Amino acid sequence: MTDARYDVIGIGNAIVDIIGRCDDAFLTKVGVTKGSMRLVDADEIKTIYSGMGPAIETSGGSAANTIAGIASFGGRAAFIGTIANDEFGKIFSHDIRSIGVTFTAPVVSNGTPTSRSLILVTPDGERTMNTYLGISTNLGEAQLDLEMIRASSILYLEGYLFDEPQAKQAFRSALQAAKSAGRKTALTLSDGFCVDRHRDEFLNLIRSGIDILFANESEIKSLYQTDSFEFAAEKARNDAKLAVLTRSAKGSEIHFEGQTIEIGTFPVKTVVDTTGAGDLYAAGFLFGYAKGLDLETAGRLASLAASEIISHIGARPAVSLSEFARQHGIIS
Amino acid sequence: MTDARYDVIGIGNAIVDIIGRCDDAFLTKVGVTKGSMRLVDADEIKTIYSGMGPAIETSGGSAANTIAGIASFGGRAAFIGTIANDEFGKIFSHDIRSIGVTFTAPVVSNGTPTSRSLILVTPDGERTMNTYLGISTNLGEAQLDLEMIRASSILYLEGYLFDEPQAKQAFRSALQAAKSAGRKTALTLSDGFCVDRHRDEFLNLIRSGIDILFANESEIKSLYQTDSFEFAAEKARNDAKLAVLTRSAKGSEIHFEGQTIEIGTFPVKTVVDTTGAGDLYAAGFLFGYAKGLDLETAGRLASLAASEIISHIGARPAVSLSEFARQHGIIS
Repeated sequence: MTDARYDVIGIGNAIVDIIGRCDDAFLTKVGVTKGSMRLVDADEIKTIYSGMGPAIETSGGSAANTIAGIASFGGRAAFIGTIANDEFGKIFSHDIRSIGVTFTAPVVSNGTPTSRSLILVTPDGERTMNTYLGISTNLGEAQLDLEMIRASSILYLEGYLFDEPQAKQAFRSALQAAKSAGRKTALTLSDGFCVDRHRDEFLNLIRSGIDILFANESEIKSLYQTDSFEFAAEKARNDAKLAVLTRSAKGSEIHFEGQTIEIGTFPVKTVVDTTGAGDLYAAGFLFGYAKGLDLETAGRLASLAASEIISHIGARPAVSLSEFARQHGIIS
Repeated sequence: MTDARYDVIGIGNAIVDIIGRCDDAFLTKVGVTKGSMRLVDADEIKTIYSGMGPAIETSGGSAANTIAGIASFGGRAAFIGTIANDEFGKIFSHDIRSIGVTFTAPVVSNGTPTSRSLILVTPDGERTMNTYLGISTNLGEAQLDLEMIRASSILYLEGYLFDEPQAKQAFRSALQAAKSAGRKTALTLSDGFCVDRHRDEFLNLIRSGIDILFANESEIKSLYQTDSFEFAAEKARNDAKLAVLTRSAKGSEIHFEGQTIEIGTFPVKTVVDTTGAGDLYAAGFLFGYAKGLDLETAGRLASLAASEIISHIGARPAVSLSEFARQHGIIS
């Protein structure tokens, strides 16, 4: 993959996170399942915002967090996502570029604002997301820089894109471009409810040649409609070329060609906010994979990045992950 | 002061902080003195923003932080400041109201955006501020709710307001309203360079009857144009009815009627970001003072609130200060 201009290019929703703490009672009142992501409209987002406590704003978006993490590891990374010509669009664009990511998506000025997610963090550190997609839904084939996709070792896609027909079409075109250039493709299932909404299409994609599948426990169980993680893992092992399954505090498993590599977690003093744990896990893994490291080392980088992100508020690294990995002796 | 509707009403700039880490070399490149606040125009703010790393956005403003802190202690608090009808205005308004503060300032829609401050945090935790005042400069007498000022036990003013002639006039009218209703008045000098710009006017105010003066070491030294803190403290003791002087890690001193009360600091594991240390110190002190606690207890609440704010990014409390003070056995 030495001819590639980028190690990884990601396509996903360009989102600014609005993160505030709340108690479990507020989740019940708002009527949302803890740990999940749900889509809300402009009115709902106003209602929840007016009821939630003081917040901080920080760039987010699942694949965007992953791409920012890869840049923080020192990887060459690019991102495609749609923003509006407003303050949140400027924040998103600044934050992803200032960490060294190539971000070239056009700004759409049709009155629809930049996407945002109200993230409610409960005292246990768990996050529950209420996302207003806004201009993200405008991501279509026209927004894709196919040349850039063909010039990237790995194309990484977030499952959330499947929630919009236009974005889903862009998703397919991007996959085709990557495949035709002989590149690797990776997919994250994003969320259990998202899997529920698009189960058959996800299964088709995985069986027809996604190279790397990322899923957490609830997502993989939802994909195979089972309560047993072991059963779901067995199915994933058969369906996917390379399946990377995360299980929060229980660590993670990498399944490849009949082999299973178990990866432990790194200790975290206090879990402050789990937002971005899966995204940063994917960052560490994809960075290691793109750099040709063995799967176990890639998994350890993944686990380390996840441990950093859950130790503070927000889903973008607070330290240089490349330095952090060196301090832990994983890379030199 | 039992007839008062609010314990404290603050008037200040309504600002959203854009906080990012940087190294000392970046401060040199930008040409700014570490630990200070300087005013920048729309072009400069763009230049610095494009050069700084990933950031988070959170409500700020010196007096606004103090007022939010008083609300977090359980005090009845109000704030007056001007915002625009934009995203940053919505963020400011949401955050201060959601912590329980009465915030009634009118929204000004003349195309000037809500004020913002680029806060550069160096590895030592010190913060350096580049503030674009934006719509804050529109704070005039017309924006003041004089009835609300007369209904507050203490009127608290930030020195930064002196940087705009219109705001300075509002400042004077507010003082007059508070005095005529028999209320207490408090002033923070805000910043050493700010004192340089308005030395004589500050001295006149202090000598002509501000009840409580807050200043840190560099501000009080700047006020009396001396390199000796002891000399400056002696002068402040003579000029001010009640002078509260903070000295970062060296603790603070309360000077009242010839008496000096020394207050120690509370231990902080890691100083992450000193933004808001002085603001939250003032919050603890004013809360204690308004509630009729003795000066030493007010000083301990002040010191405790400062220790909380420097242990994390941002100048708004991450915990309930009322609970925090109970855990430390200062209030019951």
